[in-house]
Amino acid sequence: MNLNQVLVFGMGLMGGSLSLALKEVFPHIKIHAVVRSEKSKAIILKESLADVVYLESELGDNFDFLLYDLVVFSTPVSSILNFIKSLPKNGKTVFIDLGSTKASILSAVEAHYHGIKHNFIGTHPMCGSEKTGPESAEVNLYKHKLCILCKPPNGNKEALEFVQKLWEKLGARTAIMEPEVHDETLAYLSHLPHIVSSILVSIAGNNKSTQEEISKNEKPITGGGFRDMSRIAGTNPDMWISIFLENQKYIHQALSDFEEKLKDLKESFDPSRKIDETKIRKLWTEALISKQKIRKEI
Amino acid sequence: MNLNQVLVFGMGLMGGSLSLALKEVFPHIKIHAVVRSEKSKAIILKESLADVVYLESELGDNFDFLLYDLVVFSTPVSSILNFIKSLPKNGKTVFIDLGSTKASILSAVEAHYHGIKHNFIGTHPMCGSEKTGPESAEVNLYKHKLCILCKPPNGNKEALEFVQKLWEKLGARTAIMEPEVHDETLAYLSHLPHIVSSILVSIAGNNKSTQEEISKNEKPITGGGFRDMSRIAGTNPDMWISIFLENQKYIHQALSDFEEKLKDLKESFDPSRKIDETKIRKLWTEALISKQKIRKEI
Repeated sequence: MNLNQVLVFGMGLMGGSLSLALKEVFPHIKIHAVVRSEKSKAIILKESLADVVYLESELGDNFDFLLYDLVVFSTPVSSILNFIKSLPKNGKTVFIDLGSTKASILSAVEAHYHGIKHNFIGTHPMCGSEKTGPESAEVNLYKHKLCILCKPPNGNKEALEFVQKLWEKLGARTAIMEPEVHDETLAYLSHLPHIVSSILVSIAGNNKSTQEEISKNEKPITGGGFRDMSRIAGTNPDMWISIFLENQKYIHQALSDFEEKLKDLKESFDPSRKIDETKIRKLWTEALISKQKIRKEI
Repeated sequence: MNLNQVLVFGMGLMGGSLSLALKEVFPHIKIHAVVRSEKSKAIILKESLADVVYLESELGDNFDFLLYDLVVFSTPVSSILNFIKSLPKNGKTVFIDLGSTKASILSAVEAHYHGIKHNFIGTHPMCGSEKTGPESAEVNLYKHKLCILCKPPNGNKEALEFVQKLWEKLGARTAIMEPEVHDETLAYLSHLPHIVSSILVSIAGNNKSTQEEISKNEKPITGGGFRDMSRIAGTNPDMWISIFLENQKYIHQALSDFEEKLKDLKESFDPSRKIDETKIRKLWTEALISKQKIRKEI
């Protein structure tokens, strides 16, 4: 695998961890980073996350992407969409992004190349964390994690194979999906769970009795269920808003599905009637079957 | 602490673990268990969870509760409600239950004693698990867990002190709550999270794209967020239905709060309009503050 010069746009947790992982597997690799702030630049150099660091403002219009074997975009989606417009339409450089949604990025890629074959492959390594910034970079972040790959219609097959081999060398598992299917599936398996966690914690915190008991007790009055269900609540609002803007349609669909089921169930709890046990038992059975299928526990 | 003879009604995960913990702290204690099935009896004797095991059908009408220092009810709430009717109205025996709701049990206790002082203290050790049955009993189940204690109005103060000291000797932290406040608070911090987890997993499993991707991939296509949010989905339906029946009012209230917030948020995702970022940011901020307060992370 020919990988000597790599350029990484944005070096927070994701880009920084990728850099460390690349350096571990390819000891002679040279990593160039492009970041926005002097502060990030200083941390990256101090932690040796990259060999060379440029500020975005220093990049000229004639910036040559073709000097690199691999260019990685790990900035927010809106910024990736901007970079796409300046990509060269020739050369062997392989481009990937690490964005959490894929349809909007890959349709911008296809629009930019306008029928010409290219080497842009969308990737989504699934390793969310509450941590952010280059100081949180971790060499093992991607090991044993899933990385979803999306090849746009005009993306070269060889580029997909290269990118797949690369992620697997870094210790990730890979799965290939259509961009739209990726975004719909992720709405249910990632975006909705984050929203639901935030709503759950927020309404518990607004309940008066709960508030009073919490302030009366020095230690938490929750069990393991609440701890698990609240871990991802309220983290990283900027990142999530950026994801929500890109996946509005499917998240709305997932929220509607959730609301419908919730409303139906709530009726069984109407205090003026006896609880509808059958409905609860049906939900529990459905949930257990889905859980085993989704988590592959069968 | 005078604790020689203990009687435990129902010896599943909770009762069995309590028995093991008592034996560890009080090596000379004698545990008597009352169970329903021959199968449970055999497991309990094989695992030495109790010294003597009776079948419920063997207990006569003249059963003498006063032979024991402590009587523990760790059967479903509906069965605890039945036992309460036969409790003696004199003697030094301390009674506790391990039920997940407290208002209905303790109001039945007060109705039974009808103004007479008594030694029944409600307890709720918060250590849910997907495991069930005496074969899952674990000596450390209660260590470092929270046990909520509820003293009914006519319960003796000395009984509360005894029960509190006992749970602390077994390694649990304790908090004292009013029964109604316990049930309302737990609706938000435990019951609603379990319902929400089941709905989330169930609607993800019903989505066609998600189903197809799941069956195409040998390994799970989820990240840590979904794994956490799905752990408690669909487990132990009988136990949950029994809890739901006892806490219908407060769960309905919590579901209504959740629905209102969800509905309001869903509108911001309406695909025909631009996403309302302010609303999302507000929810995220509220969730983060509540999370830190509830989990005591400040």
